[in-house]
Amino acid sequence: MFDIKIDDARYWRDCVGSIVSLVDEGAFNISKEGISLKAMDPSGISMVAFFIPNKAFSKYDVDKSVNVGLNLENLNRILASARNNEQLVMKDSNNKLSIEFIGENSRRRYKLPMIDVKKEADKEPKIEFESKVELKSDLFKEVLKDATSLSTLIGFRTEKDNFRIVAKGDAAELEEDHSGNAEFVKKMEVSKPSTATFNLEYLDRIVRACPQGNSISMSIKTEEPIRIDYKIGDANLTYYLAPYMES
Amino acid sequence: MFDIKIDDARYWRDCVGSIVSLVDEGAFNISKEGISLKAMDPSGISMVAFFIPNKAFSKYDVDKSVNVGLNLENLNRILASARNNEQLVMKDSNNKLSIEFIGENSRRRYKLPMIDVKKEADKEPKIEFESKVELKSDLFKEVLKDATSLSTLIGFRTEKDNFRIVAKGDAAELEEDHSGNAEFVKKMEVSKPSTATFNLEYLDRIVRACPQGNSISMSIKTEEPIRIDYKIGDANLTYYLAPYMES
Amino acid sequence: MFDIKIDDARYWRDCVGSIVSLVDEGAFNISKEGISLKAMDPSGISMVAFFIPNKAFSKYDVDKSVNVGLNLENLNRILASARNNEQLVMKDSNNKLSIEFIGENSRRRYKLPMIDVKKEADKEPKIEFESKVELKSDLFKEVLKDATSLSTLIGFRTEKDNFRIVAKGDAAELEEDHSGNAEFVKKMEVSKPSTATFNLEYLDRIVRACPQGNSISMSIKTEEPIRIDYKIGDANLTYYLAPYMES
Repeated sequence: MFDIKIDDARYWRDCVGSIVSLVDEGAFNISKEGISLKAMDPSGISMVAFFIPNKAFSKYDVDKSVNVGLNLENLNRILASARNNEQLVMKDSNNKLSIEFIGENSRRRYKLPMIDVKKEADKEPKIEFESKVELKSDLFKEVLKDATSLSTLIGFRTEKDNFRIVAKGDAAELEEDHSGNAEFVKKMEVSKPSTATFNLEYLDRIVRACPQGNSISMSIKTEEPIRIDYKIGDANLTYYLAPYMES
Repeated sequence: MFDIKIDDARYWRDCVGSIVSLVDEGAFNISKEGISLKAMDPSGISMVAFFIPNKAFSKYDVDKSVNVGLNLENLNRILASARNNEQLVMKDSNNKLSIEFIGENSRRRYKLPMIDVKKEADKEPKIEFESKVELKSDLFKEVLKDATSLSTLIGFRTEKDNFRIVAKGDAAELEEDHSGNAEFVKKMEVSKPSTATFNLEYLDRIVRACPQGNSISMSIKTEEPIRIDYKIGDANLTYYLAPYMES
Repeated sequence: MFDIKIDDARYWRDCVGSIVSLVDEGAFNISKEGISLKAMDPSGISMVAFFIPNKAFSKYDVDKSVNVGLNLENLNRILASARNNEQLVMKDSNNKLSIEFIGENSRRRYKLPMIDVKKEADKEPKIEFESKVELKSDLFKEVLKDATSLSTLIGFRTEKDNFRIVAKGDAAELEEDHSGNAEFVKKMEVSKPSTATFNLEYLDRIVRACPQGNSISMSIKTEEPIRIDYKIGDANLTYYLAPYMES
């Protein structure tokens, strides 16, 4: 049994948006501490680990830890109806998730069936990263857009005082150099220069939900998966994306 | 012979928009009292009755009642060119409708052929409705949008003090309860609780042209066609839509 | 060898936009005086002649005249990444064009291969025009849009004190009359009344890049190509478009 209320329905919509951009179904674990979800995308090259602490909710009655498997695309479709100044209440109700939007003069209740989600061993990879770069999300999204117009891949290379972004396409190539403490690169720690190349579409889907003005942290090790972290309010998003290896 | 002038060309564009969303051709009856049009949509499940009184026009020279059959989609395409602060003059001209936009420094004249429109017996159904609900158009359009993301049908149920909206889809179901005198439900008269289900796409096309902030009135009787009324300025729109019957 | 800097990268993007709307590859001639490009569109019914003088650049080191053939669509894609307040530096670099965007805290360098562009005899046609009409670009673009909703062709007819625009389609016909000195027609010189009809899609592509508020000059001779001139800042654009001849 759980009975959870969040004061800003649109905030929960944004949280779910950060998951559904990668995976179309998954199981939320609702425990006393908060709500978490770990899942790999269907292709298996990326994973998302989501956690939001109980303090983000204005009411959080959870008697024991429970798994709630959902079609996330349908959940997303329901949350898209969130209007300004609406609260959201989530409860379990006969193997369905009851989602109620409460406005000043109206109540709108959706019921979404719970589903069985195949439980994978969603362990986060253990990697000793060599570099960490903290980027301003808005500008990073622009960089991804620029690179997408030329290529399907993007390469990152960290050096002592420089963060290089490379995108090579048939038509043209792009090379960007950024030094630390600038408007775009907020912070940079490089214990060892590292370089790796990633699928642009997945990167774009990973960072899409990061709110404007927030920071995106990227942990990099040569030819290893990249780890990407950002926050949406109190919620923590961690993603891993496997590197592209030339065959 | 008729010679009609309207001071705001965009207003007439909006009026025609309320018809063309359901029917692609129709005959305007231009009489001394005003301009009217009745037509069923090609599928025969809905009808529109439009009337605008002569007082809505700044010039209204009509010597006798005349029917002007038009391809309404082409008329709509022409009216889409209406610019801010343009007047509109409509005249008959050799079996064509002359439509002239008059701006401060320019005149733009379109000619649209009149066509024969098969005259149907467009009698409005006589129904003794059991309930009447008056809704704020903007919010009702949002409700239709929410329901459309889950289903192709929408059900209404009126009770003494409650107006319930239901949409059931394969993925999830939506249930909304509204009591009277709220921001959304402006007024409610229920002589007998009534319930009926309708095609969402047609409902959406029916209310699409209702201006922001206006009221939409719905008259309901269990398992009978719904009647929907709203105004665009001086123009009156009445629509009927047959209920969906489970087979 | 050339090394050219422009203070507003977006301005150069707009200049290239005025060419790429008609031709997908072309050779810039970079000389001491400035940069020019002449090309016919692939269908051969229109041509563009572009010239921007050296004074438009904040740095203009050009030791000798050189031709730089480029895939203009790829150049356009790169320039689309121009951000506010970025400068642009163009240099030759091993048979590639180096395009560097310089922001306050970042540098982004693209390399675009130079290509061989078949050199056509791109001589501008010599026509003794009979009329010249100067139009406000914004309103002219609206006229083209209106006409496009009815037809694929547009006719112009100049008379002593009137500029007439005609578009005839299967569904309806449009006729516009404009007299001189109005908001739309800024100036009109008619030595002989002239009339000609043109392909609407090409006209639209020709005027698309003309900045809002600028003037478009059209030189017309009966059943001869039309000449269209406008400016983007210091850059001069001249286009020719063959008339449509009924067969």
